[in-house]
Parts: sequence; structure tokens; C-alpha cells
Amino acid sequence: MSNTEPHELTVAQVAAAIGARELSSVELLQALLDRSDALEPRLGLWATLDAEYAMRQARERDRALASGDAPGVLHGVPVGIKDIYDTTGLLTTYGSPIFADNVPERDAASIANLKAAGAVIMGKTVTTEFACGDPPATLNPWHAERTPGGSSTGSAVGVAAGVFPMAMGSQTAGSVLRPAAYNGVVGLKPSMGRVSRRGVIPVSWSVDTLGTFSRTVGDAALMLSALSGHDPDDPFSADLAPTPPTLGKGKPLKIGLLRTFFLERCESDVLAHIEGVAGKLTDAGAQVGNVSVDYDMDVLQAAHRTVMNVNAAAVHERLFAERPGDYAADVRRTVEIGILTPSVTYVQAERIRRAFRNKLVEAMSPFDVVLTSTTKEFGAPDKETTGDPRWQAPITTSGLPSVSLPSGITPDGLPLGVQIIGAPMDDHRLLSIAAWVESVLGFTGEPAFGKPS
Amino acid sequence: MSNTEPHELTVAQVAAAIGARELSSVELLQALLDRSDALEPRLGLWATLDAEYAMRQARERDRALASGDAPGVLHGVPVGIKDIYDTTGLLTTYGSPIFADNVPERDAASIANLKAAGAVIMGKTVTTEFACGDPPATLNPWHAERTPGGSSTGSAVGVAAGVFPMAMGSQTAGSVLRPAAYNGVVGLKPSMGRVSRRGVIPVSWSVDTLGTFSRTVGDAALMLSALSGHDPDDPFSADLAPTPPTLGKGKPLKIGLLRTFFLERCESDVLAHIEGVAGKLTDAGAQVGNVSVDYDMDVLQAAHRTVMNVNAAAVHERLFAERPGDYAADVRRTVEIGILTPSVTYVQAERIRRAFRNKLVEAMSPFDVVLTSTTKEFGAPDKETTGDPRWQAPITTSGLPSVSLPSGITPDGLPLGVQIIGAPMDDHRLLSIAAWVESVLGFTGEPAFGKPS
Repeated sequence: MSNTEPHELTVAQVAAAIGARELSSVELLQALLDRSDALEPRLGLWATLDAEYAMRQARERDRALASGDAPGVLHGVPVGIKDIYDTTGLLTTYGSPIFADNVPERDAASIANLKAAGAVIMGKTVTTEFACGDPPATLNPWHAERTPGGSSTGSAVGVAAGVFPMAMGSQTAGSVLRPAAYNGVVGLKPSMGRVSRRGVIPVSWSVDTLGTFSRTVGDAALMLSALSGHDPDDPFSADLAPTPPTLGKGKPLKIGLLRTFFLERCESDVLAHIEGVAGKLTDAGAQVGNVSVDYDMDVLQAAHRTVMNVNAAAVHERLFAERPGDYAADVRRTVEIGILTPSVTYVQAERIRRAFRNKLVEAMSPFDVVLTSTTKEFGAPDKETTGDPRWQAPITTSGLPSVSLPSGITPDGLPLGVQIIGAPMDDHRLLSIAAWVESVLGFTGEPAFGKPS
Repeated sequence: MSNTEPHELTVAQVAAAIGARELSSVELLQALLDRSDALEPRLGLWATLDAEYAMRQARERDRALASGDAPGVLHGVPVGIKDIYDTTGLLTTYGSPIFADNVPERDAASIANLKAAGAVIMGKTVTTEFACGDPPATLNPWHAERTPGGSSTGSAVGVAAGVFPMAMGSQTAGSVLRPAAYNGVVGLKPSMGRVSRRGVIPVSWSVDTLGTFSRTVGDAALMLSALSGHDPDDPFSADLAPTPPTLGKGKPLKIGLLRTFFLERCESDVLAHIEGVAGKLTDAGAQVGNVSVDYDMDVLQAAHRTVMNVNAAAVHERLFAERPGDYAADVRRTVEIGILTPSVTYVQAERIRRAFRNKLVEAMSPFDVVLTSTTKEFGAPDKETTGDPRWQAPITTSGLPSVSLPSGITPDGLPLGVQIIGAPMDDHRLLSIAAWVESVLGFTGEPAFGKPS
């Protein structure tokens, strides 16, 4: 590993180097902790970092290897965890002052799966309060005046800045893919039901999906292999078998450009960028066509929001009644609207999003995947919001798997993201195609603030 | 077909005889219309019977065959249709005085599928008002003082009495399986999502499932082959592939007796009967074990009811506001409670039934199918209600496929039903196992009132 700094290694490279004893878990973690020390005063990505808590796990991973245990697929790889996941013995605040002293006694199912695969829980990353929309103070490492996005803010920033090679987030509207795009990293939102949500505080049971941040698509696939599986403790966990990969050999890849809403209502530079991406993919051998979905997208966005509001009200009803003053503005608004929403309206909203999902799946069916912009904006917008979630929410609400990967840089030096969406439960095929797109695009940008000064 | 009366033929036999030109569609329909004329004054199973409407289709089927067209799988087979399905040009009242003059201009998707398979829409059968719980006047052909069940009343009675060999029903709590058991016929509730519900007035989008009545399990499988398929116009229609049949050759069939609630809280004679059935299946070579589901079943039943109420309120809200006096008592109560249910309560109810589904699937997993009683009662109860839906509702709410088939007769001459439940989307395997159970049990009873006097 002579020419590469430890913080530049991908998950796959770290796991391989540790498995081959070229690098120890402790050595890697120490390098990343040093980097964190240098960057954290500026970035502010940690909710809780307990170096000794992390180091104990790294030592244990090294001991296990030394004693002859087979390494897990994520053996010794440090992971940043959005502060809405329960972690045994480690402060878990959900971004709320109400839980300022909350130390869980049990790991979330996904944390247990990461640990079982050998990952080292490095610390808890900054989230917006209860994973809603109130912007945190964390810095976008590409541009100090632009938002890093939310709600999975610290996880996206930490991967972008090389503080850890992988991290966990969650997406109810667009909280994985949007910060992934704003920070120039890969974000994966698996199919609804793939990853158990047990032990993660919900925003909305109907739509919350746990997802990953990494620097390559291959790393996202590695993480998913450790995270996925049926869990009867999550009522929405899927027990259907994954769709087997069926990529035809020798057949050209068919990619549909999802134009409805996404490319019609994004900023004009975004449209030009995505058409440029499509041109590169065509040159590389893909057949690129157009996809339209015959649906009133404003109604869909309202339905998605209604489902979020009512579900959040169901989660917070009791606590909110006791401590309304301890809620931030956006969460409070969400819960209050949810409480006042009639059940009949909720049912109509659930029906609308189901109908959209089926229309989308039908429109996608002639293609292997569809591709569109991850965001409305041509680079992260300013810091007063966490960005516009409407470019990610339709896919979240459909339950379909989607991935965002960096696709270019604006003249202002901000990363851009392309969103690729797969068929229901077809995560594996989506990832294999996304990896091909990644290799065609060959993105190599690095954030200005990501390096220690 | 010399020794068998036309009304005694199964769907498979009718289709074969018509395909072989041993019987014409017109000849069969006329025999059934004659039988209907003789029985209908006593049974009262028809909402609308228009002999000429049916005869036109039968003539068309015969013409098609004569002109060399290949017969469909249901070619020339008359079918009774619950009066909640839209049928082009044929009165469709939904059992409500508000729709006394409603003649749809478009067939329900399932009706179009039946016609495409060659079926002859014979007429519309009596349903409870809006497929809820107000008992209709239709007679149980086995016993004049007992309920025929509901809400798919006329469809079950017509198959039992030999007025038609197959019929369509629908199940929101237990409206296919319960009347099937009370009337000694086979009822199939396929997996949620298998059969499109477009063009059928809903009770509850979340749980309504269209199902079939026939005299054999094989006939139910034939009907399902004509009915199933993805339809983007039904938001809950499944686009996942059916699970392929995987019955291991030479391995003993594993059947789990579902004891929780079903066999714990049924009438004691029912428990003895089901244990007798289990004994026969064991003798025939099956391995029979016990299945318990660790769940508060009263909470589940309340959650199911809440989902029904709120969904029904969403369907009827406007019409009910205009014409409350035109609603029967049970529908009215359902809608009124639904309107008053907070959305947060609805969300909790949806969550509860999801969690139960997953617990049930997990508990079932060591077995090929699970088996239990279709009903609480040892034979149909008296006519003041349509019977207790709680022995069917937990399976409806889970979305799992289930079938009821006749399993014996009480000392009072009433038929009993056994309910067999399959894994999610595994309808084909369920039906093949149910056909085996049918052959082991060899039920041959006939209703006392089913024969013309």
C-alpha cells in the first residue's frame, strides 16, 4: 500500500489489505482518527466520536485475524453511522436534545450485520433532528457556502473527506442520494425491504429506507451484501428472494432517460449535463432511449409528503405532546400536519403512491435501468436548506432501488450526481450496471476542503 | 356425457366436453337456466339474471368453435358474478339501492379476462350491500335456517346448488372462504396482487382480494390461470413473478396445523374435526406438525377492522355525505367509524397487520402449507348474521393465498371446511397440495335443497 494514503483506500481495498495482513485494523483506524482530528474542527461531521470505543473494536478485529479467524467481507473497515441508528454503549441522540443522554443497550439489526461482517463502528455522524429537514452546521467539503445536504449529512461528508471509507444513512424523501450528489460520493438506496430497519428511529415506516455511502459502486455492493436479509422484526422487511441477475451477454445495455419531472423541471444546466452523460454512455455501447411516466407529479409529491407527515406523527405523537418546545421547526411542522391529517386523506395518499410505482415500473420495463439527475440543482445550493428532496422522493416512495454516483463537476467546483434506478428488488443488477456507468464516467474529483490544510 | 347431468359437471369437464364438441355452450347454458328457473324461487341467489344476455355469449362461443377458433381454458363455461363486478351492459347494483339502475359501460379487468378465456357471464349474484355485513335473504341450500354466509352469498350458493359450475367472489375479511365452507364448495382467495381489482367496487384497497368458487380445487386452478396477471391499473397488482412450484419428489409433504386462535378459539367439535382431518392426511403420508404464531390476535383483528373501516370511508365518503339514509346498518357503521378514525391510528393498524404477516410467514416456513379450520362454527350458524369473519380475516390481512375445501358433514347435515394457506405468491403450490388433500378427504356430500323438488 506504499503509494496510497490509508484514507484514500476504498472499502474493497481496505478489506483486501487487512485480510492479506498488509494493513492492520488498528493502524488504519489510527490514521483515520488522525485525519478526523485535523478536519473535524472545520467540517463538524461527528455527533459522537469516541476514539477508544472504535479502537477497542479494531484491536478485536486484529486479534481475531491473528487467531486464525476468517475475515468478514468488511473486516476491519471503519464505518460512520448516522446518529439515528441504535449502537450499544454509544451515545445515540437522533439529533434531538430530548435524547441528549440516550445510550442504547442493543444494536440496530443493520449495525449487528455490519459488525458480523467485521466492520468497525467508528462513531456517530451528524443528522438533522429526527432525520427531518432542519439544516445542521456541518460543512460541505467542496464549498463552505453550500449545503452538504441532509438528513444523512455527516455520513456523506465523512466519506467525501476521507474520514471513513463507508457510512450508513437513511432516506425517507431524498436523504441518502441528495447528500451523496452534493458531496461527490456514491449513495445507494436499496429496494424497500432489503435492509432491516429494526433499531433505527423511524420518520415513516411506509417509506424509510436505510442506505449507504461509499466512494465506489463496488463498495456499495459489498456493504449491501453484509446488510441485506429478511428480518421478521421489521414489518416491511421483504422475504421474497432477490431477482437473480439476468444481464444478457452480448446484448447492448438499454438505458432509459427518465424525463418526466426530473429532466423537465431541473435547472437547465442539469439537463445539459445529463444529456452529456447519456452521450458518453451511448458512445460506450449502451442504447439510450426516453422514459415518460404519465402521472401528475405534483399530486405524487403531495401524497409522499402526506405519508411522511402522518407516519412521523405516529412515531412522535406521545413525545411531542409532552415536549413540543424541544422539537425543531421542520420536525414540529411535520408532526403537527400529520396529526391533523384525516385518515381518509392518508389512505388516498398511500393509493396515489402505489399507483405511481406501478406506472413507473411499467414505463421502465423496456429498459435495463433508467437514469436521470439525482438533484434539481446544478451543484449543492446554499446553506439555508438541505436542498430539494423532490428529485429523490418519487423513487423512495416507489420502493425501487436507486443509486447516485458522481458524474461531473460544475464550473464552480461542485460535484454533480447521476441517479440510476432499477426494477423492484433488482438491486444486484442495478449495482452491476451502475458500476459500468461509473467506469465509463471515470470521475476523479476531490473536495477542496477534504484535505488537511 | 350420458350418465352425468350437465349441472353436475365440473369446470374442467365442461370445458373438455365443449372443446370436444360433445356438448355445446348453448345446450349447457339452457340446462342451467332451466335448473335456475326451478331453484331460484327458493334459493334467491340472483341479483340479475338476463337469460338472453347469457345466451348471446353462449351462441358466440359455439360460433367461434364452429369457425375453427381454438377454445379458451374456460370455453363456454357459465360463471356467476358477484354483483360488485362491473359488467358491460348488465345491471350492476353493488347490492345498494343507490345503484339500482347502474349499467356499466366497461367490464372489470377480471371479467374481461374470464371472457377472453371463453367463459359465459351467466348473471349477477346476490351480494351483501357494498360487500359488507348486512345479511341478504338468499337461502343456504343445505339448511333453510342457517346462513349461507356473505358477502359473496349468491356465488357460493349457486355453485353449491349446481346453478353454475364456477363463480366470482371477493374477500375483505372472509367473504369467499366462509361462504365456501358454509355451502360445501371450494373457495380460493389468491395472493394479494394476483388478480386485478380494476372495475370492482372496493371495500378496502389494502385488503380486498378477488376470489373464486368451484366444486373442485382443480377448477379453482383453471380459473386462476385465466384471472391472474399484472395490471398497472390496480395499484396493488403484483409485478413480481410467481414462485415456481418446488414440491420435492419423494419427500413427504409437511403440513402445519395452525393452532393459534384458529384451533384454540373455535367450537370444540371443529377442533375434533380438524384433528380428524390431520389424522387422515398423516395416514396418507403427510408429516403433520403444529404451528403457533406469537401475536396478540385480538389486536390483529382490531387492526384489520380499522383498516377496513378507514378504507371503506375513503371509498364512500362523498356518496355517504349525500345519501346516508340509503346505506344499510353495517356499511353505515363501517363508514362512520372510518371517518372518525385518526390517521395515526390507521398507520398503527397497517403496521400491526404487516408485523403479523411476517410472524405468520416465519412460523409457516418449516412447512409446505398450513392447515386450519375455515370457520369458527361447526356448520353454518343461524341466519341473523353472515357468520364470524375472524377465522378468515387474519389470512386476508396477511395477503397470503388460502383455499377452503369441503372436509366433512355435521350430524345436522351441514358441510364443514378446511382452510389451507400457502406461502406468499405461492398460489400454484398451494393449489397442488390442496388438490391432494381434496383427493384424500374424498368429500361427496350434496345439499338437501340443491335439487329441484
